[in-house]
Amino acid sequence: MSQEFASHLLEDAVSQLSRLPGIGRKTALRLALHILRADGSVGERLGQSIIDMRKGVRYCRCCHNISETEICPICADPRRDARTICVVETVKDVMSFENTGQYAGRYHVLGGVIAPMEGIGPDQLEITSLVERVAAGDIDEVILALSATMDGETTNYYLYRRLAPYPEVKITQLARGVSVGNEIEYTDEITLGRSLLNRTLFADSIKR
Amino acid sequence: MSQEFASHLLEDAVSQLSRLPGIGRKTALRLALHILRADGSVGERLGQSIIDMRKGVRYCRCCHNISETEICPICADPRRDARTICVVETVKDVMSFENTGQYAGRYHVLGGVIAPMEGIGPDQLEITSLVERVAAGDIDEVILALSATMDGETTNYYLYRRLAPYPEVKITQLARGVSVGNEIEYTDEITLGRSLLNRTLFADSIKR
Repeated sequence: MSQEFASHLLEDAVSQLSRLPGIGRKTALRLALHILRADGSVGERLGQSIIDMRKGVRYCRCCHNISETEICPICADPRRDARTICVVETVKDVMSFENTGQYAGRYHVLGGVIAPMEGIGPDQLEITSLVERVAAGDIDEVILALSATMDGETTNYYLYRRLAPYPEVKITQLARGVSVGNEIEYTDEITLGRSLLNRTLFADSIKR
Repeated sequence: MSQEFASHLLEDAVSQLSRLPGIGRKTALRLALHILRADGSVGERLGQSIIDMRKGVRYCRCCHNISETEICPICADPRRDARTICVVETVKDVMSFENTGQYAGRYHVLGGVIAPMEGIGPDQLEITSLVERVAAGDIDEVILALSATMDGETTNYYLYRRLAPYPEVKITQLARGVSVGNEIEYTDEITLGRSLLNRTLFADSIKR
């Protein structure tokens, strides 16, 4: 799309917007024209909120979750169980687990999983800092909450090996099983096999 | 999605982004996290370009196209034919016609079409200013280049009536016919009928 923009300011905003993932030049132009048509404060607020976010948000020194302070609110909360670490891939996963309302421990955000095909090795991830947290002691359990994919399982195993020198720490992983709401007919056989092996007492599901 | 954001700056950016058309909260969160992960200058440049655009871009006093100056570059260009006005719905349509490279006249951006179902009447559009341009004289032709939809045709007819007091001005509309690249089999019958009525000399298509 070679477009003669009547304004280089529009051209500039469109090219910045089109650098966002999943936003092509056509969508970027649509968004920019929407901002131009909208009430004057809309563009100002949007632009400023992005700048403020980029300037103000940093990563927790302990768990690498996003934070506005050196230590994030979760790590700083004395009511949360400091002896349990849930290892997740991304900041978004922290939000997902928080939304379950089922977890009261702390987190450790790896920043992804080991993916040799994409050139992501252990050194690109926050693995050393995890081992240091465990080595510092006072940890009872590390929950490996990575994706149930090939790369996720590889990373799980890698972490398991790296944490082997600390046998007093229990290493667990998320249950594998049939997704709630899914039909058996459409559940793959490996998942079915795992869900059978790790079956739980029916009475437990009633109590919850 | 009730999310416990670790940062109100992130929360704020997400809610501003999700006000854009076609961007829900999930997409907004994905964009915001991308900006956070990206190189520091990305967010700054994106935010600033939006603010600058909103502040710097205004509408041409004559044709209502976007412009950084009181009169847009097209209206100000002495090489363009000031006696022909192409009436379009939006700023985007101006870009589309400019991209054809086939038009050397000026434009008039209505801002939409008359759409009673959406509560858009003639007063919400730049119709009076068009009539004033024509009334001021020195106009040979007004090309109605609105969508070939019911609302577009209604607006065409309304404009035709409003411009009736100036019989010296030729009112034309875009040719209706088979879209280039389209098969006859998939072209609707009304279009086929119009394309038959308004058939052109084959020799003309070879010359182009």
